Formats: sequence, C-alpha cells, structure tokens
Amino acid sequence: MLVTEEACAAAVPGATMPQEPRQTDFQLVRVRSTWCRIKKGEALSSDEDEITLSEAKIGECISEGGISWIIEAPIYFCYKVVETYNILDPSNTTLLWGHITDPQQIELAMASKRKLRRFIVIDEVVDKLYGSKVREYFEENNVQHKILALPTTEETKSMDLVLNILHEVQNFSLDRRTEPIIAIGGGVCLDIVGLAASLYRRRTPYIRVPTTLLSYVDASVGAKNGVNFLQCKNKLGGYTPPAASFLDRSFIQSIPRRHISNGLGEILKMALMKHKGLFDLLKSHGKYLLDTKFQSCNSFAHHGDAALQTTRIAIETMLEELAPNLWEDDLDRLVDFGHLISPELEMRVLPSLMHGEAVNVDMAFMTYVAHARGLLRAEEKEQILQCMRGLELPVWHSGCSWALIQRALRERLKHSGGQPRMPLPTGLGVADIFNDTSEETLERAYKLWVKDCKMGLEEELQAQVDGPAPGLSCLPQ
Amino acid sequence: MLVTEEACAAAVPGATMPQEPRQTDFQLVRVRSTWCRIKKGEALSSDEDEITLSEAKIGECISEGGISWIIEAPIYFCYKVVETYNILDPSNTTLLWGHITDPQQIELAMASKRKLRRFIVIDEVVDKLYGSKVREYFEENNVQHKILALPTTEETKSMDLVLNILHEVQNFSLDRRTEPIIAIGGGVCLDIVGLAASLYRRRTPYIRVPTTLLSYVDASVGAKNGVNFLQCKNKLGGYTPPAASFLDRSFIQSIPRRHISNGLGEILKMALMKHKGLFDLLKSHGKYLLDTKFQSCNSFAHHGDAALQTTRIAIETMLEELAPNLWEDDLDRLVDFGHLISPELEMRVLPSLMHGEAVNVDMAFMTYVAHARGLLRAEEKEQILQCMRGLELPVWHSGCSWALIQRALRERLKHSGGQPRMPLPTGLGVADIFNDTSEETLERAYKLWVKDCKMGLEEELQAQVDGPAPGLSCLPQ
Repeated sequence: MLVTEEACAAAVPGATMPQEPRQTDFQLVRVRSTWCRIKKGEALSSDEDEITLSEAKIGECISEGGISWIIEAPIYFCYKVVETYNILDPSNTTLLWGHITDPQQIELAMASKRKLRRFIVIDEVVDKLYGSKVREYFEENNVQHKILALPTTEETKSMDLVLNILHEVQNFSLDRRTEPIIAIGGGVCLDIVGLAASLYRRRTPYIRVPTTLLSYVDASVGAKNGVNFLQCKNKLGGYTPPAASFLDRSFIQSIPRRHISNGLGEILKMALMKHKGLFDLLKSHGKYLLDTKFQSCNSFAHHGDAALQTTRIAIETMLEELAPNLWEDDLDRLVDFGHLISPELEMRVLPSLMHGEAVNVDMAFMTYVAHARGLLRAEEKEQILQCMRGLELPVWHSGCSWALIQRALRERLKHSGGQPRMPLPTGLGVADIFNDTSEETLERAYKLWVKDCKMGLEEELQAQVDGPAPGLSCLPQ
Repeated sequence: MLVTEEACAAAVPGATMPQEPRQTDFQLVRVRSTWCRIKKGEALSSDEDEITLSEAKIGECISEGGISWIIEAPIYFCYKVVETYNILDPSNTTLLWGHITDPQQIELAMASKRKLRRFIVIDEVVDKLYGSKVREYFEENNVQHKILALPTTEETKSMDLVLNILHEVQNFSLDRRTEPIIAIGGGVCLDIVGLAASLYRRRTPYIRVPTTLLSYVDASVGAKNGVNFLQCKNKLGGYTPPAASFLDRSFIQSIPRRHISNGLGEILKMALMKHKGLFDLLKSHGKYLLDTKFQSCNSFAHHGDAALQTTRIAIETMLEELAPNLWEDDLDRLVDFGHLISPELEMRVLPSLMHGEAVNVDMAFMTYVAHARGLLRAEEKEQILQCMRGLELPVWHSGCSWALIQRALRERLKHSGGQPRMPLPTGLGVADIFNDTSEETLERAYKLWVKDCKMGLEEELQAQVDGPAPGLSCLPQ
C-alpha cells in the first residue's frame, strides 16, 4: 500500500470505545522524513523510493479500561576490540581513526580540513610514565587536545570524579558524535570515563586504552562502566560499550609484578569456567608470564608466545560470554564466577586486596564449594589451588569471614532475581550454574578452606616479600 | 555440528601470524550454561536439547598488525504506555502490576508471600495535593513503601538531586529486578528519577506517572531521561525507557491554566509536523481544552471527546517518531521541531518561560523561517500563529535575540553531526528536514517575526492578566 496521511489517521480512536479488548500490531515505515505506523502484515508499496522499514514494533490494545501501547525496539550496539603495537608511535593512526569501521568515513574524516580535536583522560600514574609520549603523539598528528590527568583508584572511583571530567569536557566543547573521549589507564580509569562519556549528551563515543593486564582482558572487552557509591562497588553505572578498545601489551611492562598477578586472576576465571587449554597455559607458563610481564620474548622458545596466546584466549572466551548478554538481561553468567563474595570483600578491606586478588579469594573458596558438592575431585581442586599459588594470587584472606560470605550471598540475591545463580567448576575448564547449594555445604566448604588455605597464604606472603626480582633482560624499552 | 570444547578451542591463534588479513564471522550458541562461538553458516546439531542461538555476532580479523574483533549485539527494549483511570483508587492494581507484560509473571508475583515493596519519588507540589491518596493506596494494598517528596523544577534538575534519590534508594534496599522505582510528577521529576533508576545497579526498572499535560504527552512516551548541567539543559542523561508509563488524565485538572498551555505546545509540535487532524482539533477545541483542563465532559457534545482524541493522537504520533529511533541514532528527527533554539532560550531566561512555551517561541520563529523559504503560504503561517495564540502560548520572547538564535544554531551543529537538520513545516501537518537554510533567510525571517509578533505578545500577555477564570462546572472532584 501507499503510505498516506489518511493511513496514519485511520487508527485515530473515536469518542466511543469498543466492548471487547482489541489488539493491533503495527510496524513502522518512513516515507521521506516522516515515520508512520502500518498494520503488521500489510504490504508495502514499491512506488516510493525512499521507504524504510523499522525493526521497532508498536502493539496497541484498546479495552474499556483505556488504551495501552507496547513498544518494542532493538538497539544495535557495535564496538571494536583491537590489538595493536606501538599505539603511541605518531605514525600509528589507530588512536585517531581505529574506532571507525566504515573505510569511507575514515577517508572523509581524514580529508576534512577541520582540525582534529580529542579529549584525553589519563591516570596520573600512567601520565608520569607515558604523558610526554601521549602529548608528543597528539602534537605530531596536529590534533588540538586536552589531557586531563586524574588519580583513578577504587577510593576515588566516584560520581564526583565523573562530574569533574564532565566539567572539563564541557569546557573543551566536544562534538558529540565525531570526537570520542579517550581513556588511558587501568580499569578504574576506563570505568569512570566510560560512565562520564555515556552520560554526556546522553552518549558520547569513547575509547579505552588499557594500561594494566587486568583492564586489558576485562574492562576493555565488555560494555560495563560505573563508579562506587556509599561503599558499594560499582553501584552506579551503565552498559554503554566504547566505540573501541585499543590493546597494546607494551604498557604492561611498566606495571608492578603484583598487578600482573591481579590480571591473571581474571584470566584464571575464564580458564576455570570454560577453557582447559587456557588453564594449562597458566599452569605451565604462569611464572614465565609474571617474569616477562606479558612481553613476547622469542628467546624463550619453549614457552612459545605464551603471552599472546593467553591474552587472546582470555579475550575470546570473555567475548563469547559477554556479547550475547551485553546488558546482562540473562542473570545466569559464568563470568560472575569469583564475583559473588569478592565485591563485599574488596570494598571492606580496601586497599589491602586488589580486584583480581579479591576475585581469586572468592574463586578459591568456591573451588572448595564445588569440591564439597562433589563437582570437583580432590585432585582437581588441588591443581586449581596450586595454579593460583603459582600465579602468586592469595587463596585466602582474613577479611573473608563466614559472616561476610553470608552477607555477600544475601546481597547477591537482590541483584540476581532472588536466585544465587552460583557458577561453579564441574571439572577443569568446564562449569555450570547452580541454585541449590545448601548452607550446610557452604559451611563445610568454608571450614575446610580455612583449615587448608589460611596457613598457605601466610607462607606465600612471606615468600613474596623475599620473592624474585622483576624484569628480565629481554624486556623491550 | 556438535558444539564441543574442541570446537571452541579450534579458533585459538598460534604463535605465528598469517600474511594476509583473514576475516571470520562467528555466531554464538549456548550449550547449557556456556556460550561458544561457531563459524557463521555452520550447521547446528539438533542433538543437544538446550542449544540457544544468540543474535549477537563477533567478527574476527587477523592481520600482521594484530587481531581485531568487531562485536555486534542487539538489545531489545520493551516498555508500556498505559492509559488508565483512577490510578490511585486502591482497587486499581495498575500501579502495582501494570508494568508486567507476562500474565504468568503477574500470577507468580501476586501469589508470592513476600511483602511487596515500592520506592516512590513524588514532586513536593504533587505530594501536597495527592500525597495522602498515594499513602492510602500503598497502605490499603499492604505494600511496604517509602515516599520521597522532592522539589523537582528546572532549577533543581541536577545530578545532586539524582544522588539524593540514590542515597535513599540504597537505604531502602531495593531488589534490582522486581521492585520498580515509581516517579509521580511532571517531566522534571520523571527525568530525574529515570536517570537515577537507570544508574542504580546499572539499570533498575522504573515507572512514570505524569501529573502534568506536558509530561503526559512528552516525557512519558519516550526513553530519554536526564538532568541539567552547568546551565545546559539535559546535558547529562541516558536513553533507558521506563518499564511502563501510567497515564491518568485526572491529574491534569489540578494544574494551573498556564501549565495546560505549556503541554499544548508539545502537542502542537506533533500536529504541525505530521497530523493535520490534530492541528484542526487544536484550532477548533483549544479554548475548550484549556477551560476543561483535558477532563472528558459529555455535556459538551459538540466538542466530542476532544481531550481523549487530542492526547491519543499526540501520543500515537510521538510513538511513531520515537520507537524507530529510541536512542536517536538517526539525527534527522521531526520531534526536534521547536527544540533547536528553545534549549538555549529556556535556560537563559529561567524561570520566565516554561518548556512548552520556549518550544512555542522557537516554533513560531521557525514558522517564519518556513515561510521565508517559501515552504508555507502566508495564510498557512497566519493560521499557525493564530492557533498558537488560541492555545495561549507566547509567539515571541524578548530573550530570543538574533545573537541567541545564532549561538543556539551553532550549538545545535555540535550534537547533530555538523548539520543543522532543521525540521520545518511544508504545509499544515506535513514537514521535512532541511540542511540548507541560509543565514540571509534566517535573518529575513527573524526581522519579519519580530515585527509581527513582538507587539502581538505584549497584547496577549495583557489579555492573559485580564483573562477568563479557569475551571468549568463539569470538572470532576
């Protein structure tokens, strides 16, 4: 049919209402600039060249009680995760154009005479190490820029900091669509900037450049952003993905050894939940990865490129779980492993445990739970704990009391629809989600865990103090 | 194929990289709790009962420069707009259950022994008028509730107020999925609460109950929420729709006459852009609607049910434009008519112009622009201006200087991708979007507009002071 004004007007209700509820489903078509609803199933005319059909739908139900409309509309999110090298080399244009998918758009943007403008938020520690290179990069590329260096830690991860950023963004006067905000730093920095950007003018594109191992494999891969609120971890935030994340492993060489372990915690999570091969990599090459800080070293041939393989599998397995569930509509999430108790623990003992460490304490306990339920053999449990120790991750913490575990699991119920939805390993690299773990099983697991691991941790901490010197001769400059 | 761990592991890259870029597209399938990627086009085995295929896609491109992934994932938003009567009558369960679409879910929720809990934010003026009825409603329905009354005006529409709400929400301890936050008030109240809810735990469902005509036809229908920031209107916010909006016209009887005009401004916008029938309704029944405050009065038969028809068409035309473009990915939006200059004007002269009034001043000027471009005949322009005056809306304002118009249009370019995308009427109830209005045309239109309308407004304001007494005997209690 031809979509005319009359077709639109036909659905206008009269003053009298029908006795029986009447449901009509509409599709939406655009003719030139105007959207118009048509009944579902009605044919579209091919007379009009410029007709566009939307995927959105409107259901209209008229009854004696009144009228109601149900609106269903899909929003397509699209983002890129890009591995690159030498991202701060002025000849590498990834940071300027890498977020654009359409080659024509890149050409258009590059041909534009307007001076490029970028607003950059950088963690202040990263700024000390790389600030001059960042400045040089934008200067050499003739980009008008503002670099905002901020302390981005769990303690400062607040709406205040988001508003500080937004204040500066507003002063810089960004174009909402074409000038992405760039975040360079660890997970906290990426989370804060992500929230600021998604709030600014209801959505401003942003780019993530992770500088820690943890944010490389975790914050950079998904859509989540957020800040802490009233001592609660990530209580405020959203799910707007970045335009792109640009991953450059060379940043990782400048982080302390403990921060490498921190990132290994989240990688181990993916290994335990769904990839035996990744688990084997961590078991065999964990110490090597810690020693070389994830830099690729051809001189150690028997390790292959363990750093490359480990990060890629970590990202691929993470993407598998996040992409189909970007807004967490499905509450059954394997990636929640290690995240049932750790949010409470991490916030309570701040700053004594890093995120990945708190996650590992949680995973260690849950490994005991899986064993107590008969899902894991004693030998598998031991292999997991041994791997954790090899990655120099804590497997117990004094703050993780039985009372805290109970409180955390109660809190969990509130944001997981009344079910615990507890991911547990059911072998090495396989897992499932359980809703029927009894209090008795949890307590039994807790007692065994404390007995086995409390002493272990104390020994390990001592070992870390006397531990190996970081850095190997093969590390790049 | 059978999805096995091997199939997942097969895509793991080796240590050596191929010479040629290689793009592979993956789909995602879930077997039990685990998502796994499979190459696009590969057949799914029917052996597994619990296989789920996601609509999300991952494209992987391996080149010498590294690896990149493109993630595409749709999120389906669904919300309800429901007309109801006597929403605060304790026997009307709309406010408690009306947001749930699945009848089974309602049954489950009603059968649950857990006491219902609701957090309500209400505008403090509305609270004075309806607070006792709201309290009675929740008490009679045995709902554990917290009612937070707040001043919600353009001046208080800030992130501070959002954080106040979130503080109280956190103290009340809401279930993130099943206990929607309820907002009762005008557009500012609905916008603030919408932002608070969408930030809390990354998304908490919320319900909108508009109590003004403007919010009835505007804020309640779409997905937008937000707050003002640094004197800029709605500079921070998002696009998370409510679970439902519940519309009850009886609230409108208690708002001042000027607030009815305010709402009529946004209704007139929809009429001018896309519905001649709605324009005719406003022209013929405008005064009647102002006098009766949108209450249905059978005693005035020659008006039909103008109130019902006007609000329904306004909502239907609004939904047509919003549903296909919920996140404003398409910047060509007819609903932006009246919103190019008014944001700047409204914030500048606060509180002297209400939102719909500022919109109308913008529309009046744009009507002159359309005429200056030859899109509207003089007689059509006159009809529009006459209709505006009939709705007791300002058609000019001293704050709307030529400098302000220029500044506002420059600001417009920044969030509309560098094009003005100017919606203009091309007749009565039809419109299109233009990017080629010259400065000369704008200035010519401005001069004629000032000449015609400046005096008109002054006369009209005088008339309003001496104006008709509001309220007719048919108004319900």
